[in-house]
Order: sequence, then C-alpha cells, then structure tokens
Amino acid sequence: MENRSVKEIWEAIKQEKWQKPTSGLAKGYTQANVVILPKKEAFDFLLFCLRNEKPCPIIDVCDPGEIAPPVAGPEADIRYHVPKYRIYRHGELEEEVNDIASYFTEDMVTFLIGCSFTFEKELMEKGIPVRHIEEDKNVPMYITNRNCRPAGIFSGPLVVSMRPIPAHLVDKAAEITTHYRKAHGAPIHIGDPAALGIKDIQAVDFGDAPTIKEGEVPVFWACGVTPQMALKNAGPELVITHSPGHMFITTITDEELNQL
Amino acid sequence: MENRSVKEIWEAIKQEKWQKPTSGLAKGYTQANVVILPKKEAFDFLLFCLRNEKPCPIIDVCDPGEIAPPVAGPEADIRYHVPKYRIYRHGELEEEVNDIASYFTEDMVTFLIGCSFTFEKELMEKGIPVRHIEEDKNVPMYITNRNCRPAGIFSGPLVVSMRPIPAHLVDKAAEITTHYRKAHGAPIHIGDPAALGIKDIQAVDFGDAPTIKEGEVPVFWACGVTPQMALKNAGPELVITHSPGHMFITTITDEELNQL
Repeated sequence: MENRSVKEIWEAIKQEKWQKPTSGLAKGYTQANVVILPKKEAFDFLLFCLRNEKPCPIIDVCDPGEIAPPVAGPEADIRYHVPKYRIYRHGELEEEVNDIASYFTEDMVTFLIGCSFTFEKELMEKGIPVRHIEEDKNVPMYITNRNCRPAGIFSGPLVVSMRPIPAHLVDKAAEITTHYRKAHGAPIHIGDPAALGIKDIQAVDFGDAPTIKEGEVPVFWACGVTPQMALKNAGPELVITHSPGHMFITTITDEELNQL
Repeated sequence: MENRSVKEIWEAIKQEKWQKPTSGLAKGYTQANVVILPKKEAFDFLLFCLRNEKPCPIIDVCDPGEIAPPVAGPEADIRYHVPKYRIYRHGELEEEVNDIASYFTEDMVTFLIGCSFTFEKELMEKGIPVRHIEEDKNVPMYITNRNCRPAGIFSGPLVVSMRPIPAHLVDKAAEITTHYRKAHGAPIHIGDPAALGIKDIQAVDFGDAPTIKEGEVPVFWACGVTPQMALKNAGPELVITHSPGHMFITTITDEELNQL
C-alpha cells in the first residue's frame, strides 16, 4: 500500500482493504485530523479553531453536507475515505465504525485540521531525530496550565506534544517547524516543563512516556488533542472524528501546505 | 481629533461628536470594515471569508452577542464606536444610523475585516504615490470576471481596487503589500485590465474614475467591496455594516497586524 497513489488508497479504504493507521502512506501528501459536527455547532467550532490556530490549524472546511473537501480532496468522499471513525454522543465515545454513511446528513460540517506527521517527516529528513518514531511509540502528550481562547460552547486547556531534541539541534528544529503554520507551527515552549504546569515529564496524559537522553532538551508543540478535549468538554449531540492515527490523506503535498 | 488616542476617539464617536469618515484618525492603528449578522448566517459568512482571504481578510470575530472584539478592541463597544452604520434588510439598504443598540441582540455576530488604508499609508511613506489620495478622490473599483469561492448562501464576483503606479515602482509596491496579508495582501493582477474582464478602465463600478499618467501601470488589489456584494446577493434578513469610509478603529497597530 505504501507506494499507491492517494486515490488508490482512498479506494482501498472504502473497500475495507485498509483499516489500519495511515502513518507512512502516500509519502509527500499531508494527512489531516477529521472533525465532523452539526451545523448548529459549526460556527463556534470554526471560531475556536481560528482563535487557537497553533493547536487547531484549519486545512479545509466543507459546506454543510459537502462530502468532498474542496481544497484537500475535491474527489474524495469523507464518508468512506478514512480507515476508522469514532462516533461521540454528548462528548462520550459511542462506537468505532468503518464508514459514516448512516450518520452523515445534509447538516453535517467537515473540518480538516493539520497534524504533526507533516513536520516530523521534515525533521527526520533534515537529520533531527524524532524519538517516539525511532522507538515505534506514540508521542508523549501533556495537558498544560494554559487555557485556549474560548469560543461559544468550546473551551479547554492547551494540550502539547513533546519531542526531546539534542541541545545543538533545538534551534534548527524550531526553525523548520515555524514554516509549518498549518501543522502546529513553531514550538509553544522549549525547556522547563514546569513552565507549562507539567510536574513530571514521565507522567504523560496521553501517548507513551518519553526516553530523554543526556544533552537533550524537551521541546513542546501545540497538539491536535486540544480540539478533541474542547469537543469533549462541550459535548455536542453528535461529533464524528477519525480514530487516533487513522487520518484522512489529502491531495495537498507537504510543500503546498505551506502555501495555504 | 487627529491626535487623540483610540479610546478618546471611540468616546467622541459614542457622544456623536465625530460622525465623519475615519481616514487619518489614530495614525498607526489599523482600521477595519465591519459586518454584523445573525448567528444563523455566521458560519457561512466566516467560511466565505476564509475561502476568499484576499478580499475578506479576517482581523477579528466576536462570539454571538459579544460587543468587544477580543483581539481588535477588548474595551470597545461595537454598538457605539463606529461613526455611522448601515442597516440592510434582505440585501436592501434600509437606513443609516449613529448607533446600533436597538438592533444588536445576543444573536448578532461581529466580523472585522482588513482594509487597504493600512497599506496605502505604508506605500506613501515608502515614496510610492497613491493617486486617489493625492487627488482627494475615492479609489476606483471594478467588478471582475473572476468569481469568489462560494460558501453556503454566499457567492459573488471578486471586486478589485486599482492604483496606477509608476512602472519602476511596481515591484516595490507589490512587495510592500505582500506583507499585509490582513489588508488584502499582494496585488491580484498587474497590468492589462482586460485580463480581469475590465473593458474600460475609466468606467468604474464604484468610486471615482482614475487619472493614469504616462509610464504608469494599473495595479489591482482585492477589495473589501467583495464581501459586501456577496452579502447583497445572499440577502440575509438583517446585516449591519459600517458606512463607507466610517470604519472601526482598532487598538491593533499596523505593525502588529502583520503578526496576526
């Protein structure tokens, strides 16, 4: 599957021949977090994303009922082209499904939000180690003491991911990610975890505990779990998301993403 | 009034001591177009702005019922701090008023959209003549043959403003305005008006006909009349805008605007 085109992968996903995480698929193409909710809550959520661009960088938003993201996948069908979806009712996970045809109505609005896959690939290509990928683990994530700017019914803390970077490469890592405004951008914080209210760097809130080697500095980026927590707090009647790691693969290249 | 602070000007406007255009007031502070509409249409309009960022650069959006733009004027009252407002019903101008206290409900959503005042000042400071200001006229504006990306109920043509620039200064003018992403940004087109479907450069759709001198090139920028036409086309039950030239003065400096 690794060498297939984006459209071939979408088709394989629709035919349920690929129901696994999308990491490593369609190299060079941006992958996105998916949030789908009723139009009633769509204005508040869009405003929340705009007010908190680092954790919630908008790649594309559909009209109500629109199944093809106009920028990120004009030939896609968002009801079938994600390998696994989660259905939330009033903030609680109800089930995981392979397609959302029975949930998607003319009233549902699809948001695609940037994710850190994009800049992690670039970091590694430029010689900066990404520990959790080396160790085949999930990135360590922490709930911080900073609050997002609220919008309507949505509010919540800023959640960050952390990557330990050798001290002499920290500036380079920061500079590379600064260019990825649509993939969380520059670090939120470099160094002391306590500045973000993180007491114990080993006590992660999500993901796996990190291995930090001597001479490495913890670098914190805004994380896509932030909007998920705001969605859980607000608890709209129905929210559909991708399942963790099972992203929507866009037809936007990583290079094009910086031009959006 | 020219040397008063932003807050002093707001207060003078509220007390109806200033009901004239805002051009030249509060030098160094960004002025913004104002659009206020019911929450029912707010998602579609916000999406329209995001999909057409050059003509509709979002500076700030309020929560429904919020009277103080959180970024652009956290101590302002949008119901009183614009010198003149226009009330539109179903796309038709109903009246001009000095405050909107009787129209503004918990349901109304305020949008502030960047305007070209910001970059025109910078052009002049850098030695690039701005003809319509020299001649104390309104900028010439044209409806183009390009359509905006529609969003929900909103659609319409791209409207541009034109400034004739001496040929040797065109690159410099383009470069300066490129930095003002929140004030229409880089030119849409340089040179032949026919490329935008403009048959006669003297036959303006809005504003005053231009004086173009020998050796000058017409340079076209996206224009804030674009969202006004989309609002007129869609004709929501109620839309409130500023009256032309009677802008909202923000507490964001022109320098800060580029960091938004």
